[in-house]
Amino acid sequence: MAPANNEKKASNGKELKSAVIVFANGAEEMEVVIPADVLRRAKVDVVLAGLCDKKPVKCTKGLVIVPDCYMKDLENRKFGAIILPGGQESNQAMAESEKFGEFLKKKEKEESYIAAICSAPLALAAHCIGKGKCATSYPAVKPQLESFYNYVDDEKVVVDGKLITSQGPGTAFLFALKLVELLKDKQEAKEIAKLLLVDDYC
Amino acid sequence: MAPANNEKKASNGKELKSAVIVFANGAEEMEVVIPADVLRRAKVDVVLAGLCDKKPVKCTKGLVIVPDCYMKDLENRKFGAIILPGGQESNQAMAESEKFGEFLKKKEKEESYIAAICSAPLALAAHCIGKGKCATSYPAVKPQLESFYNYVDDEKVVVDGKLITSQGPGTAFLFALKLVELLKDKQEAKEIAKLLLVDDYC
Repeated sequence: MAPANNEKKASNGKELKSAVIVFANGAEEMEVVIPADVLRRAKVDVVLAGLCDKKPVKCTKGLVIVPDCYMKDLENRKFGAIILPGGQESNQAMAESEKFGEFLKKKEKEESYIAAICSAPLALAAHCIGKGKCATSYPAVKPQLESFYNYVDDEKVVVDGKLITSQGPGTAFLFALKLVELLKDKQEAKEIAKLLLVDDYC
Repeated sequence: MAPANNEKKASNGKELKSAVIVFANGAEEMEVVIPADVLRRAKVDVVLAGLCDKKPVKCTKGLVIVPDCYMKDLENRKFGAIILPGGQESNQAMAESEKFGEFLKKKEKEESYIAAICSAPLALAAHCIGKGKCATSYPAVKPQLESFYNYVDDEKVVVDGKLITSQGPGTAFLFALKLVELLKDKQEAKEIAKLLLVDDYC
């Protein structure tokens, strides 16, 4: 018998319905909050994890968020998706963190989805995640990414295997809904888009 | 000499470039964060105020936000706009708060913009703000509002004098950009929409 949708598993047996959003001071708050909220509506277990062991986290436009936990608490946890919001200062901290790089490489091996929006693909590239794959980003950071990725200009969300990338705050709903589609299914994503009154998801 | 745009004042002389977002436990996090971020990008001085003197605030999908201040700190402050995000539990607390009702009535007299999204117009109606004006809301709460407002079904953001209303998370960018337009100007709203990659604002 085929498993019910809410028991969907990855090929390696890990639970797909969980995601971690990693962020540090200077993260783009809308790109933290929109994916968290949309995925939680799809009953994905979302953890907001501070990159640094310091709380709370002050986002780029001043929003102060208390994370659910910190990077150090994640070591042995498996996630269906690792999500990186944009925000220059936060992405810089991610790019410079050796520990975060190791975490990303481990998750890539475990076949988690790795998703980055806005300037966050810079942090992935810094840790050599997804080299040569199709990807997009906030348009202003394209010059720093086009030698590393097969850069896509004209799509709001790009999926290449387990790598998901998107452009910025205005595409954050579509980015989050694509993750619902991948972690759950298209029908659930459509229902959530309708409830949220997001009318450009199809 | 005409005042420079950044010195734009209301007819009663108060500074227009400030806004307060009032929210309580159960607020819709995207409807708190999108207006805050978008308005701050327009250099509007945005204050996130907790309705209750208890911190931090836990939003409806679990996001924990540390407010900038609390209702009790706002008494003698003037704001260009008062913004109410949705979220049933938060809106219920607002509807039941006599102090919040007095605050709204005072701000209505001072000719602040009063802006509510999703189910938040219910809290305005509970305090008799804007009776008879054109307004919209999250579609599911229309039956509770149509005898109080001149209900508009088919617009994402409705402006009637100093009352601004909008439908839900998927219309939150347009709601926030309309507030930029009103507190600053249309050109600034257009520039921010472009920077955010919001392509349905015009």
